Amino acid sequence: MPEPEQIRAAVHRYLDAVATGTAADIAALYDENATLEDPVGSPSHTGRAAIEKFYGSLESARRSTELLSLRVSGDSAAFGFRVVTETGDQTITVEPIDVMTFDENARITSMRAFWSAQDISFG
Amino acid sequence: MPEPEQIRAAVHRYLDAVATGTAADIAALYDENATLEDPVGSPSHTGRAAIEKFYGSLESARRSTELLSLRVSGDSAAFGFRVVTETGDQTITVEPIDVMTFDENARITSMRAFWSAQDISFG
Repeated sequence: MPEPEQIRAAVHRYLDAVATGTAADIAALYDENATLEDPVGSPSHTGRAAIEKFYGSLESARRSTELLSLRVSGDSAAFGFRVVTETGDQTITVEPIDVMTFDENARITSMRAFWSAQDISFG
Repeated sequence: MPEPEQIRAAVHRYLDAVATGTAADIAALYDENATLEDPVGSPSHTGRAAIEKFYGSLESARRSTELLSLRVSGDSAAFGFRVVTETGDQTITVEPIDVMTFDENARITSMRAFWSAQDISFG
């Protein structure tokens, strides 16, 4: 099981990659066979290729992320964060709570994002 | 699947019960066969009797709770909150992030609490 500090570092790496990385950079933080459910209740994406595709829509937008809260428990983390996406003249702000599990190398083995339309604001 | 508003109300009912209810009051918000994992990574408690026992230790303490953030997604909620427990001359503050699933009547079918020793403060 990864140490809590490894998990904390992995969450920060993830938010940095979501802000400044390519879809491939983000997907590289996931295990080859990881699953992604975003938002929770929607169909899962399985495997790094599908996960890279999921993040592809981010690449054309300017993005920033901010960690709001982080709890580490066992091999898992739950964290609230803000992601601001600028596409053309629209700014979209979402504040999900994500739950991730990690393998012994602190690679993401699953991600589930809790949010709904109510948690999005447009500016 | 319960409506988002039913899930929001259920989370508020839960935090009210943790603050002012008996262990039986809290357990009554759970499905008969619900599971509880608190903290995540520790053995699960299954069934309402085991869940009532889990909350029994709270009964002798003065408690207060405050919801800090809440995200509803599908049949699930993730929420950060503060629970302050006063036992004799010690005040213990914990700020977990909990994830719950709900049945069609917004009864809790599972609860997982993300927190570690780092998230506890003593006053």
